Amino acid sequence: MNKIKLGMVGGGHGSFIGAVHRKAAALDGYYQLTCGAFSSRPSIARETGAALGLAQARVYDSYTDMFRQESARPDAERMQAVAIVTPNHLHAAPAIAAMKKGFHVIVDKPLALTLDEAKKICQVMHETGCELALTHTYAGYPMIKEARHLVQTGKLGRIRKIQVEYPQGWLSSPLENEGNRQASWRTDPACAGAGATGDIGTHAAHLAEYVSGQLISELCADLNTVVSGRRVDDDAAALLRFDGGASGALIASQVAAGEENNIRLRVYGELGGLEWCHRNADTLLLNLHDQPARIYRRGSAYLSPAALNNCRLPPGHPEGFIEAFANIYSSFARRLHTPATERLSSDACALGYDYPSINEGLRGMAFIEAMQASAKSTQKWTAITL
Amino acid sequence: MNKIKLGMVGGGHGSFIGAVHRKAAALDGYYQLTCGAFSSRPSIARETGAALGLAQARVYDSYTDMFRQESARPDAERMQAVAIVTPNHLHAAPAIAAMKKGFHVIVDKPLALTLDEAKKICQVMHETGCELALTHTYAGYPMIKEARHLVQTGKLGRIRKIQVEYPQGWLSSPLENEGNRQASWRTDPACAGAGATGDIGTHAAHLAEYVSGQLISELCADLNTVVSGRRVDDDAAALLRFDGGASGALIASQVAAGEENNIRLRVYGELGGLEWCHRNADTLLLNLHDQPARIYRRGSAYLSPAALNNCRLPPGHPEGFIEAFANIYSSFARRLHTPATERLSSDACALGYDYPSINEGLRGMAFIEAMQASAKSTQKWTAITL
Amino acid sequence: MNKIKLGMVGGGHGSFIGAVHRKAAALDGYYQLTCGAFSSRPSIARETGAALGLAQARVYDSYTDMFRQESARPDAERMQAVAIVTPNHLHAAPAIAAMKKGFHVIVDKPLALTLDEAKKICQVMHETGCELALTHTYAGYPMIKEARHLVQTGKLGRIRKIQVEYPQGWLSSPLENEGNRQASWRTDPACAGAGATGDIGTHAAHLAEYVSGQLISELCADLNTVVSGRRVDDDAAALLRFDGGASGALIASQVAAGEENNIRLRVYGELGGLEWCHRNADTLLLNLHDQPARIYRRGSAYLSPAALNNCRLPPGHPEGFIEAFANIYSSFARRLHTPATERLSSDACALGYDYPSINEGLRGMAFIEAMQASAKSTQKWTAITL
Amino acid sequence: MNKIKLGMVGGGHGSFIGAVHRKAAALDGYYQLTCGAFSSRPSIARETGAALGLAQARVYDSYTDMFRQESARPDAERMQAVAIVTPNHLHAAPAIAAMKKGFHVIVDKPLALTLDEAKKICQVMHETGCELALTHTYAGYPMIKEARHLVQTGKLGRIRKIQVEYPQGWLSSPLENEGNRQASWRTDPACAGAGATGDIGTHAAHLAEYVSGQLISELCADLNTVVSGRRVDDDAAALLRFDGGASGALIASQVAAGEENNIRLRVYGELGGLEWCHRNADTLLLNLHDQPARIYRRGSAYLSPAALNNCRLPPGHPEGFIEAFANIYSSFARRLHTPATERLSSDACALGYDYPSINEGLRGMAFIEAMQASAKSTQKWTAITL
Repeated sequence: MNKIKLGMVGGGHGSFIGAVHRKAAALDGYYQLTCGAFSSRPSIARETGAALGLAQARVYDSYTDMFRQESARPDAERMQAVAIVTPNHLHAAPAIAAMKKGFHVIVDKPLALTLDEAKKICQVMHETGCELALTHTYAGYPMIKEARHLVQTGKLGRIRKIQVEYPQGWLSSPLENEGNRQASWRTDPACAGAGATGDIGTHAAHLAEYVSGQLISELCADLNTVVSGRRVDDDAAALLRFDGGASGALIASQVAAGEENNIRLRVYGELGGLEWCHRNADTLLLNLHDQPARIYRRGSAYLSPAALNNCRLPPGHPEGFIEAFANIYSSFARRLHTPATERLSSDACALGYDYPSINEGLRGMAFIEAMQASAKSTQKWTAITL
Repeated sequence: MNKIKLGMVGGGHGSFIGAVHRKAAALDGYYQLTCGAFSSRPSIARETGAALGLAQARVYDSYTDMFRQESARPDAERMQAVAIVTPNHLHAAPAIAAMKKGFHVIVDKPLALTLDEAKKICQVMHETGCELALTHTYAGYPMIKEARHLVQTGKLGRIRKIQVEYPQGWLSSPLENEGNRQASWRTDPACAGAGATGDIGTHAAHLAEYVSGQLISELCADLNTVVSGRRVDDDAAALLRFDGGASGALIASQVAAGEENNIRLRVYGELGGLEWCHRNADTLLLNLHDQPARIYRRGSAYLSPAALNNCRLPPGHPEGFIEAFANIYSSFARRLHTPATERLSSDACALGYDYPSINEGLRGMAFIEAMQASAKSTQKWTAITL
Repeated sequence: MNKIKLGMVGGGHGSFIGAVHRKAAALDGYYQLTCGAFSSRPSIARETGAALGLAQARVYDSYTDMFRQESARPDAERMQAVAIVTPNHLHAAPAIAAMKKGFHVIVDKPLALTLDEAKKICQVMHETGCELALTHTYAGYPMIKEARHLVQTGKLGRIRKIQVEYPQGWLSSPLENEGNRQASWRTDPACAGAGATGDIGTHAAHLAEYVSGQLISELCADLNTVVSGRRVDDDAAALLRFDGGASGALIASQVAAGEENNIRLRVYGELGGLEWCHRNADTLLLNLHDQPARIYRRGSAYLSPAALNNCRLPPGHPEGFIEAFANIYSSFARRLHTPATERLSSDACALGYDYPSINEGLRGMAFIEAMQASAKSTQKWTAITL
Repeated sequence: MNKIKLGMVGGGHGSFIGAVHRKAAALDGYYQLTCGAFSSRPSIARETGAALGLAQARVYDSYTDMFRQESARPDAERMQAVAIVTPNHLHAAPAIAAMKKGFHVIVDKPLALTLDEAKKICQVMHETGCELALTHTYAGYPMIKEARHLVQTGKLGRIRKIQVEYPQGWLSSPLENEGNRQASWRTDPACAGAGATGDIGTHAAHLAEYVSGQLISELCADLNTVVSGRRVDDDAAALLRFDGGASGALIASQVAAGEENNIRLRVYGELGGLEWCHRNADTLLLNLHDQPARIYRRGSAYLSPAALNNCRLPPGHPEGFIEAFANIYSSFARRLHTPATERLSSDACALGYDYPSINEGLRGMAFIEAMQASAKSTQKWTAITL
């Protein structure tokens, strides 16, 4: 099987998520990093390329250069897909430019800075026929696939309640004033668009919708800027109503001091509840009403194909964040390797080969905008509208 | 030390909380159950009394009889305090009648059916000089005392966020239609006043306020009746604002299928967060920002006096719900043994000898009424007013 | 139901286990503490009696006095059973004296100082027809009853492996030299007979045998005295062979610094394994081969009668050490309330009304002596012989 | 930085550990899989090579061919190191042949079939100056590095007790008779040499020695073959004595039904104990005597360089088995990139760049042979001798 030749926009030295994308792409052997426009600062771009063992000719000063020059290369060499790992305000332009040159796109979340930008990406995607993957990492965890499977197969009965939370503590102090690059762009409204809501709230909202199969229809949000002087929200909470009749709550905070990245989902139906938390990502708890709870474990033979096809190791040998990330990359590779005419298979989801894409990106942006509108409103409920 | 002679209103055969009160009263040897009006059905009252080894003369057909006859007995025999363990609508009348005869009162939560009733209890309490304890059990756990101590001594810095939840699953189906007595009165508006909000939401609200030292000032509630045909709310969620500047969320549900009684509190300050959950009641987690988390354990020598004075056993030998309940009983006994002129000691709290009383009862009723008002309102925020 | 009138030998101010026995006896209302010979120091004995609210006439200077005077009292007043809570070397004499006067006996473990003493107790028990309960607390936990039930009903298939451990850390330093009374007698060979082996090793051995239904037939022990100057073993490990074909290991240490009282049992059969640990005493894990593990929880309706009859509370409201202790007391009360002619019911065990008695006491002493013999031997295996 | 050109012996379709080695090598970008002799069956070898995207010319029918032809290639193309991922009896010959051609070696554990073979590998290694890494995976976990660091820096005081266990359940039934390839060779004495002792007991022994800094000097073993008809031990337990004065126990079982791969280590010193288990690989528990326990978490800024240099992600984003494996690969790459004249730096260990090598391999084989000798002996203690 030939490896997909991958380019990268962003991800220079000091970037956090760029390295994750590279490791995720490398893990299963489906991709070969071929070229990159790693930084707007040429020296950093070149250093990064060299450290990665890339030929100098494949390290570009800008994504515009990269797309232009790569599209001129012969088939056997040319970049086929590009990973966009820049701050949020630099997602839409390269994504659109890439697709216009025929490159498939992998883009970090949230999809864009605004819902409007996201809609433009959607339009270009449809016009060009290019594919797009959005790295909502948590959807890549095998036990999340199993959770979705258990909901879909009715193990919980009708879903009634959905609780999702993403507590972080790293922004408990004004790190953005202390030269922390990650903190700086993530708290700059011009780069990030939103704070906790966009950075982690979108993950929580996606996870809730992905597993429950219900979409958030209305929400009632309280956004706070806890650290004084900060320019975006760093703490968000919302009451939720879902289109399938469930209610719930979402909490996303970056000032929950002492917390790491403990995204946690609970879904309750008539017959029982599911619980998954990032800290024990290999475990899914099924709490059945009036029965002993079940501990489902990644890698176990009794899991659904959707989960097992996203496992590499037998149970007890832990898999983590990079593996979950790699599951998105690998499913996307599988998609790109499938002839376009055969791509409509409805089995992808049952087999666990689905990945977040443009619809999830649009919903994420609509979620952010509804949260922000609700926070400013004195009315209780605000609808999410695309 | 002479045991306090205790009477009981309610708690006949088949009652849940009556037996808990009796075991809690017996555990540390401060009380002797002396008499009771255990049921409005005389045969059940008598059976219960006999099973408890009470003399027939001390088993009464009504609390009115009991208060009248007991107050006529000589000092050495007479009931001194009464535990009221009836459904909510039968709290106020016996509490008021008891105090008017000079009996101290221990009453299960919530204090009454309405805030108005609660205020009447308050007034009689002040008129008679009687004491009252309200069994918000969770406040009796030693690690909750420690949590409060850590907040008070500034270990977390200024408190910013408070999350509290009480998920239960036992009312996931309409048990009240199947002859379940506990379910019947708890879902009858005339007996219970409120559903999940009153039964467990008040516990959650009390715990949040007790540990954080901040009071809920405003809330935005979503109350649901998930099981069709049910006559009270069985699911509640609210966004919270506290008078000390913190924000938070409260979740209380009786249809979280598969959940037991897992009340859980998290309090976050500038420097770190605390986490306690009922399932690991002997453990308190202190997650300090950028330091290894600390596991505080009940019974350990390094705990505050407030916690240690509520422990009976060394760490590793678990204590549970009855012990927490007994801590309220024992602190109340200590109070009753203290001459009235000496009762104003401000040390009770530092020593862990405090217990929930009339103020907590009033706040609980105000919380219930604010939740119900907010649920009906289209406005986002509703104030809690006493 | 009339309460059983209970006397106590030992348990004066400062004793640890005496207070536990009293609370356990009080909890369910089956016993009334009536008299005591709490200490060989009369002033302590009297203080203790007064604090417990006993009439002065029922507080004795010695157990000899107590047995003599109590046996002279009229039926309606007379002590019926006695709890012996003294150090190990003071178990046999009062137990034998009590039974000779017709008093039933509850005695702390280990049963005696030597196997010979234990055999004498056994003989007197048979001669007098008195009953005896031995407080191997862990056998009183509901989830241990459930574990035994799951093994007995074949849920694990044939049992192959048994691991049991009891790590403690409190004797990591020479506390016996610092005036710690608990440490002093427990490390004095004349009072304790053995160190870790007797104090906690017997608990571990009993738990393994009780749940698995297999008896240790041979062992290979390594006993250490880790703290220099200590006069007994403070650390024990042994390979085990069981009479039903299982093998295993036992670890009991009092110098496992940082550990509390985390006794833990694992039993593996052909089809799966069980895991219970004291720290999560309300939980029993059933790990079935190639199936999701099951979490059994105390108080749940799906448990066996043997477990449920030892529960007081619904699941999620924790019960602890005193409750487990009380289960032994309450089962013993049930036995004493049963007319002697009806006592042979084979159902006691299935209903969870069994309690450790003389056979368990004899085996405990044989275990201690085999461990000590093996530790001195250069041969690998030493048999346990009664 | 140029990637190290890696060959592979074994690891054809259906192999378990081959794929793990490849993913581990790929993860951090230090290696490029260049060639392989993946199977003795040419069709499988070729299929595997093709699936991995290797040129046909670099897929060989035997390791002899591979070493010969690769050594004839020009520098820029030639394989530089080889990963040997065959069953145990096929470790020594290719390792020796590879080194004789100047190729560095990464070999799965245990190092060889016998201690004699291991000694021969050692001799050739010294003769050729080639380097060797042994993939004792668990030593690659960052929190194991931290554990070692805490011991080395005296946080526990003098080490007194070491407990290590590796329970697995997958061989609870005779899978080797049902066509399971992994089970077949692992239970074949000619291929595996030993059963549970070699396959997982060596991991446990290595972990205990690596973290504690003490070496097992004597042991007393009980080896069992629980599944009837099996030709190797599937269950092992041993009492241990260490050269630094500690005692301990080791348990390794493949018939602990319901267990996954839950290797777990506890080390106790004068001041406290450490606990790590594979199931929560990102967490290290430090239980200090009379202080709140500390939870150390992978990725946290407060960790030692030895741990942090083996982390890729911030705390809360889990890393797993492949990452631990990759840490061995990456440290080995760092070593190979270091000019030979500079390799003696004593800092490698403090920086976490150490990896298991020939000494660990020799000790593993000596451990296996001592366990087997002890199991046959009636004497209690057997020394480990190299």
